[in-house]
Amino acid sequence: MELIQNNRCFEGEQRIYRFHSNALQTETQFGIFLPEQALAGQACPAVFYLAGLTCNEETFAIKAHAQHMAAQLGLILISPDTSPRGEAVAKGDHWDIGQGAGFYINATQAPWAAHYQMETFVTDELYQLVLQQFPIQAQHVGIMGHSMGGHGALTLAFKYPEKFKSVSAFAPICAPSQCPWGEKAFSNYLGTDQQVWLQHDATALVQVKGALFSEILIDQGLKDQFYSQLNPALFQQACDAVGQKLSLREHAGYDHGYYFIQSFIDQHLQFHAVQLQAD
Amino acid sequence: MELIQNNRCFEGEQRIYRFHSNALQTETQFGIFLPEQALAGQACPAVFYLAGLTCNEETFAIKAHAQHMAAQLGLILISPDTSPRGEAVAKGDHWDIGQGAGFYINATQAPWAAHYQMETFVTDELYQLVLQQFPIQAQHVGIMGHSMGGHGALTLAFKYPEKFKSVSAFAPICAPSQCPWGEKAFSNYLGTDQQVWLQHDATALVQVKGALFSEILIDQGLKDQFYSQLNPALFQQACDAVGQKLSLREHAGYDHGYYFIQSFIDQHLQFHAVQLQAD
Repeated sequence: MELIQNNRCFEGEQRIYRFHSNALQTETQFGIFLPEQALAGQACPAVFYLAGLTCNEETFAIKAHAQHMAAQLGLILISPDTSPRGEAVAKGDHWDIGQGAGFYINATQAPWAAHYQMETFVTDELYQLVLQQFPIQAQHVGIMGHSMGGHGALTLAFKYPEKFKSVSAFAPICAPSQCPWGEKAFSNYLGTDQQVWLQHDATALVQVKGALFSEILIDQGLKDQFYSQLNPALFQQACDAVGQKLSLREHAGYDHGYYFIQSFIDQHLQFHAVQLQAD
Repeated sequence: MELIQNNRCFEGEQRIYRFHSNALQTETQFGIFLPEQALAGQACPAVFYLAGLTCNEETFAIKAHAQHMAAQLGLILISPDTSPRGEAVAKGDHWDIGQGAGFYINATQAPWAAHYQMETFVTDELYQLVLQQFPIQAQHVGIMGHSMGGHGALTLAFKYPEKFKSVSAFAPICAPSQCPWGEKAFSNYLGTDQQVWLQHDATALVQVKGALFSEILIDQGLKDQFYSQLNPALFQQACDAVGQKLSLREHAGYDHGYYFIQSFIDQHLQFHAVQLQAD
């Protein structure tokens, strides 16, 4: 694991590391914000942040404006890349598939399966690595994400509730089996069997898994230019059906981007801090 | 004036406008953050932010994390580009000269003089435009900047104290006549007469103009990779000599970039809000 960037920030450090991933079979990079408490060796709660289409491991650190509140709360923030990268890794035909668009699932189809193993990467390899290398309270790890990464956060939380104790999202793709982005990604990465798709669809998952979290927080802008891809109402219905408490907050005038995220990031981090502290 | 981007942010709006500048003789863009109070038509204090080498009108909005506090304080933030741009505009041989490196002065030398009129642009054309177009309290306008833009903020404040009532900077180039960046820029834009350079050198200016501000705030990281270009001690000495109060805060571990700026931006905006309210 090689430290390739390190910037002091709010008395903590915003870092980028590079390492060879066995899951992805390529080099990969991730960002991590370590608050002052972590630098002093104190074990801290941590939150993974999964970014959206076209983003990388640096997007969150630059654009989400999260470090201020994370420093106040003593939260570690971990931001993986959104896909495998590099010359050897299959590219897509557009920005919504391939590099920058890994969808946080394990691909089973050629040419994607060789490298696109983002589910294993995030929940196993990177998860273990950061728990070994940084002072993280192992029982106090949450997950959040934006858009494609909101889909990632919701689905990985419901698949691995023993690993993620809190979950929130900004403008998540709530039902990827039922929107163009998800249909394209899933048919490429997983093949045509739509029963398989449902294992990676938050709206379908919550119906199978039931209520696993004391609360889920989702913020959604009502001027979101990708609203038709997101289907928050379907996820709300599925949560209601199984008694999963969901705070779906809709915000007039806000769009899909990071100016929206920065406006509400403090509240998400506070939400995670409270959820992670509980019991 | 054409609105080319508009994103809701903290109940205000982060916008980018494009217009044809007479001073620059080319199209130019600027960013503006309008807090909720300004959107409601209420006159607000305003602060210009001048960015550093290689940056543009969007850098501040994305990376400085200023909107949160500006929204709380009801401050309008205006961020011009760092130089003229375009095919017709002379380019430099490197990132520290030419496009992206206008140094907020009026060039007198060919090929620069045709477009590089950033001093007139900021203090006259853009200044008048924003006062006409937005609900700005004309007597409550401040200026701040980073690196090359810190030089810009300090020098323009001392040249136009009737326009800028408060001034602060992050890691400013304090004595451009005495550092490689400044020597290269000034010899290109202004020619070889070093007496002319001193009219655009904050350390020289304060000695001529005397104490014009009740206080100046400068934050400087002690791990700044460009520290040798900045010379804060020379500016401190010049301020001391004329009785200009300067709060030069040095921060261990912080570097030259926006992770440093975001760590202290709230305090700069609070400083401006207080200074602009005074009298």
